[in-house]
Amino acid sequence: MAMVCLLDFEAYAEKYLPKIAWDFFAAGADECSTRDENILAYKRIRFRPRMLRDVSMLDTRTKILGTEISFPVGIAPTGFHQLAWPDGEKSTARAAKAMGTCYIASTYSTCSLEEIAAAAPGGFRWFQLYIHRNRAVSRQLVQQAEALGFQGLVLTADLPYTGKRRNDVRNGFRLPPHMKLKNLEGAFEGDDRSEYGLPPNSLDPSVTWDDIYWLRSLTHLPIVIKGILTKEDAELAVRHGVQGIIVSNHGGRQLDGAPATIDALVEVVEAVRDRVEVYLDGGIRKGSDVLKALALGAKCVFIGRPALWGLAYKGEEGLQDVLRILRDEFRLSMALAALLVLEAQCLTSKEKVPLSERDLSS
Amino acid sequence: MAMVCLLDFEAYAEKYLPKIAWDFFAAGADECSTRDENILAYKRIRFRPRMLRDVSMLDTRTKILGTEISFPVGIAPTGFHQLAWPDGEKSTARAAKAMGTCYIASTYSTCSLEEIAAAAPGGFRWFQLYIHRNRAVSRQLVQQAEALGFQGLVLTADLPYTGKRRNDVRNGFRLPPHMKLKNLEGAFEGDDRSEYGLPPNSLDPSVTWDDIYWLRSLTHLPIVIKGILTKEDAELAVRHGVQGIIVSNHGGRQLDGAPATIDALVEVVEAVRDRVEVYLDGGIRKGSDVLKALALGAKCVFIGRPALWGLAYKGEEGLQDVLRILRDEFRLSMALAALLVLEAQCLTSKEKVPLSERDLSS
Amino acid sequence: MAMVCLLDFEAYAEKYLPKIAWDFFAAGADECSTRDENILAYKRIRFRPRMLRDVSMLDTRTKILGTEISFPVGIAPTGFHQLAWPDGEKSTARAAKAMGTCYIASTYSTCSLEEIAAAAPGGFRWFQLYIHRNRAVSRQLVQQAEALGFQGLVLTADLPYTGKRRNDVRNGFRLPPHMKLKNLEGAFEGDDRSEYGLPPNSLDPSVTWDDIYWLRSLTHLPIVIKGILTKEDAELAVRHGVQGIIVSNHGGRQLDGAPATIDALVEVVEAVRDRVEVYLDGGIRKGSDVLKALALGAKCVFIGRPALWGLAYKGEEGLQDVLRILRDEFRLSMALAALLVLEAQCLTSKEKVPLSERDLSS
Amino acid sequence: MAMVCLLDFEAYAEKYLPKIAWDFFAAGADECSTRDENILAYKRIRFRPRMLRDVSMLDTRTKILGTEISFPVGIAPTGFHQLAWPDGEKSTARAAKAMGTCYIASTYSTCSLEEIAAAAPGGFRWFQLYIHRNRAVSRQLVQQAEALGFQGLVLTADLPYTGKRRNDVRNGFRLPPHMKLKNLEGAFEGDDRSEYGLPPNSLDPSVTWDDIYWLRSLTHLPIVIKGILTKEDAELAVRHGVQGIIVSNHGGRQLDGAPATIDALVEVVEAVRDRVEVYLDGGIRKGSDVLKALALGAKCVFIGRPALWGLAYKGEEGLQDVLRILRDEFRLSMALAALLVLEAQCLTSKEKVPLSERDLSS
Repeated sequence: MAMVCLLDFEAYAEKYLPKIAWDFFAAGADECSTRDENILAYKRIRFRPRMLRDVSMLDTRTKILGTEISFPVGIAPTGFHQLAWPDGEKSTARAAKAMGTCYIASTYSTCSLEEIAAAAPGGFRWFQLYIHRNRAVSRQLVQQAEALGFQGLVLTADLPYTGKRRNDVRNGFRLPPHMKLKNLEGAFEGDDRSEYGLPPNSLDPSVTWDDIYWLRSLTHLPIVIKGILTKEDAELAVRHGVQGIIVSNHGGRQLDGAPATIDALVEVVEAVRDRVEVYLDGGIRKGSDVLKALALGAKCVFIGRPALWGLAYKGEEGLQDVLRILRDEFRLSMALAALLVLEAQCLTSKEKVPLSERDLSS
Repeated sequence: MAMVCLLDFEAYAEKYLPKIAWDFFAAGADECSTRDENILAYKRIRFRPRMLRDVSMLDTRTKILGTEISFPVGIAPTGFHQLAWPDGEKSTARAAKAMGTCYIASTYSTCSLEEIAAAAPGGFRWFQLYIHRNRAVSRQLVQQAEALGFQGLVLTADLPYTGKRRNDVRNGFRLPPHMKLKNLEGAFEGDDRSEYGLPPNSLDPSVTWDDIYWLRSLTHLPIVIKGILTKEDAELAVRHGVQGIIVSNHGGRQLDGAPATIDALVEVVEAVRDRVEVYLDGGIRKGSDVLKALALGAKCVFIGRPALWGLAYKGEEGLQDVLRILRDEFRLSMALAALLVLEAQCLTSKEKVPLSERDLSS
Repeated sequence: MAMVCLLDFEAYAEKYLPKIAWDFFAAGADECSTRDENILAYKRIRFRPRMLRDVSMLDTRTKILGTEISFPVGIAPTGFHQLAWPDGEKSTARAAKAMGTCYIASTYSTCSLEEIAAAAPGGFRWFQLYIHRNRAVSRQLVQQAEALGFQGLVLTADLPYTGKRRNDVRNGFRLPPHMKLKNLEGAFEGDDRSEYGLPPNSLDPSVTWDDIYWLRSLTHLPIVIKGILTKEDAELAVRHGVQGIIVSNHGGRQLDGAPATIDALVEVVEAVRDRVEVYLDGGIRKGSDVLKALALGAKCVFIGRPALWGLAYKGEEGLQDVLRILRDEFRLSMALAALLVLEAQCLTSKEKVPLSERDLSS
Repeated sequence: MAMVCLLDFEAYAEKYLPKIAWDFFAAGADECSTRDENILAYKRIRFRPRMLRDVSMLDTRTKILGTEISFPVGIAPTGFHQLAWPDGEKSTARAAKAMGTCYIASTYSTCSLEEIAAAAPGGFRWFQLYIHRNRAVSRQLVQQAEALGFQGLVLTADLPYTGKRRNDVRNGFRLPPHMKLKNLEGAFEGDDRSEYGLPPNSLDPSVTWDDIYWLRSLTHLPIVIKGILTKEDAELAVRHGVQGIIVSNHGGRQLDGAPATIDALVEVVEAVRDRVEVYLDGGIRKGSDVLKALALGAKCVFIGRPALWGLAYKGEEGLQDVLRILRDEFRLSMALAALLVLEAQCLTSKEKVPLSERDLSS
């Protein structure tokens, strides 16, 4: 079977992963309308491709928070990589480093932060954080991540409680006994691990914007907030001193009925007015999706499920395949739309977005 | 089979109910476009979810006409509950009381009002009324309901004649001989019970707004009018002194081509300007639908078919399951959209509706 | 099989008619997009139903060109009724008379005008006319129709050439040898009857608006023009002295890509400003479609294919069934939308159309 | 099997061509959304057909760059005609001449320009050009085309690199060994012919607008630029002195997400303001599509895949069938929309487009 595009990896994963794992990765909340909208929304956006520009020299490199990556696609935080491949997040770390991009390691990794750091020394990594009721747990993780060379903190804002994913309920999803949430071993008392491998209600639903200051007090790392979908929250994020915003709806796994991220991106970019960097995850399935997100103001995008499909296919190697395909497709899209350099793309107003416009007719 | 969401109960009911009963409950008028639109319209509405608000303390309670309910989902009036479960409306009454919400008992119940009242003493109930050609029938029912402790009257305005439900015609639907419209026993002469268990044309199609005054003269109970879909009629309802309005298209069973209730809600809420309470029924299938209706100005919603599916599954217990699922999903949606208290939600202008906006792009 | 709605008659006709006849009746031009749009367009229109009006006395009668019909649904001109039922147009004439409505007999009838007139003496009938290259043919038909008591002339304007109906080409459609175009017997020399039973190119494609004056000179009958889809042509029709306009796209059989008639109706009604009566055909499948057309300004609608399905089912009796169903559904729709009398419905501006509005959101 | 419309030829080709050839001709880039939009966009455009105009004399002739063609449908440049029919482009040339229209011969022909010219002496032909890294190759082809009587040069602007066509990658598409790109024999050193029969990267991605001047210096032929989709590039094309513009997205084979050509046409026509001629290719499947394009301002359209289906059916004869069907359908559409002469149709503003308007309601 030729692996030509990301959908080939999806088909492979659906065929070869245990159903319970596939369902967990594929799950969206409720009837999955937001999950599906993340993809459909790209199809409503049309390019305005330009011709006869010299596209012989294309440069896909960009910088996020000052660090160069080889192309504007990083790896979004997702949990439980050992469900997809025995080496789990270690493979993910190696693939990201090999491809020269950023890997956001999840708190809910099945490898520890030490293992991840050791697997790909010198790799460019951020650490994704939830704030637990037991703040000591979160503080320790932040400090550990900083000590291990992670270069940014990504605070997930959209999970005060876990969304309702019907298939996980039907399947009675639990992490298999031989897998552990390594970063949280010993963090919680008692044996109940019924909520996705954790004690129920371990996360703190009372977190507010002020907790950004608490987080700031713990670390020198830049803070990126993930899960913003409105201009109001984008403004609050900037005011509370974050360095970046990931426009995200958690892959459609939290509030069903939330907008597609590419739809929400425009108002966030306009609200932010270049004061911090804006990224996006959700629905990226081919290189032209990346270009649409960048043309609408994202500095970089992150992939979630496609990274897991790559792992499921061949671990580190499979994930490299996925990233390589996206990079090549993205570069080709740049050429065909006559976009030469990415730096000029961090645009905040519609007037400045020459490459894309919303197709309002469909 | 795990009962995870309301659609599971629908599938169960379709599988286990006699076809003639399933068809009757499922029926919409003509080609069922309004029935289906009731559901589809929710999918076109997108939330604007907010993040990082303290959602640790969620309160789903609200009050309708001054009486507290534990969450803003009541039971809409539907007929013939014994078609779904042997104990019929007695089970419905018990489930509503157990879940702390309001049950609107239909005139067309297969249990009498006495039986309903006795099944769940102290339960919060309204009584749904048609106006019959023989006004004495209606007067007696109103006075009986008041005497039995029902706390509100719901006048159905959209059934001067019964809508054309093709499958009922094909099936030659009649109430089975062992079931009776207990509230109407002895009310009509003759044996013809060919129209849904009643003599043909027993309802009075000459009813007008002035009959609200007649109804008011019969009772001290608050009057709620059900079936309003336009701002013009909403204004008339307020002027004629009702205490509440249920935006309803009778589950799509009357005029095919009427708008989805969630679409009609906005203009009704704007016209009413908080002078009376506005409720809605039609198309509610998950907790986020409830939240959308409340964000657009409804004080409470009512479920029709899902209650019948719950009854069909396990009677009182099954209906409690349905209500519990809706309550839990609604509470989770509140948290994920960062809505803290419902009282603030009775909003009448678009500017005041921060949680939802119509997605005009699809 | 219960015949509950018009679609039941369609299914019967598809099952029992010879394929070549079914295909001929069902055919639309090219890819049938206009034929299908005629139906789909109704689904995009939503009522604004009003409540609590006295609808005990409903009057479905209306007048067209001064003659009363029992409800506002007539029979559009279609050819070759013997393909559907042995008695052909004689059955059609009888059914229309029995139901108290108008029958527009086609030039391309398989019964002669005399036979049609004799079959239902005193029936209300118009005669549909094409203008032939041989004007004597048309003149003779006009004068014959007038002499036989037809009360109006309907000039078809949209068939300078016959549209391309792919299935008719595939089937090599011809009228069976035992059927004749009785009105045209002896009208043409030679034996070539290859174009739908006529010599090729018998119609005159050079007809212009001035030919209305010629037609006027032949007869005292009122002239109705059929096939108008734009405000410009509606204005021309009024200026050339017609008494009525049928908004029609020939059932989608002529120019594929023409608008749905219910969509074109609005601009025609607005342009005409009550100077002449406006009717519509195309896509009427249930009573609420009739009401939508009337609410948007049509004085009456005409049915084409559904009449043929009725004939195919049981001749005169089957067509009466179809008309009776439409009448009953229409009356019920009137009641449920609280429309009391039709005379008030010949409205020309949007402000005056209280019962319907275009749903722009879908 | 009756060949009634172009889709019949498509079905034939899909059935009888080798899969690898069918896939190559059918391919679109990535998920083929632009390829499919080319067709779907026509369905969203509605005519405003006019009635009662004398349409007895219809003239489908028009002129492009001063040369008359018998109807406004030419043959777009596509490669590898021997994949469809043994005689390849020689058959194409003969069919185009027989039907009195323009054939744009592709650089990537499997017959040489000499063979094409000799196959149909005196035919009206343009030559499609890519600019190769080795400019001598391009110069030689231009001069050869001019010497052989080709009357125009068509510069393809949208292929700095080849789009990603998934099925071609899966199939490992290569030109069969017995076919040659005759125009490029001896042009390149080495044996690698892995990219669609050519050495990889033989085209020059550094081409800019200034290269139009270089091209101009080589030839007296008029220059038409193909692949323009925006008003900005249309303005640039006019300023750089081209004589014509083909609005094209390369049949959806280059940048997936580019707009449908019929959608892009409007802004190009408006920008050009009659200074040069504007043509279109993409999605033409029936005569009314041609009329829509002309009504929106195109002077002529070109067909790509349908020409190949015609060749696959019966070579020269099959292609004539395809062209004849399109011509007859187009003529019929003219009549049914009451469009008499094409010359009046090169309109540039919306006010001047009386025959068509965008249907914004769907």
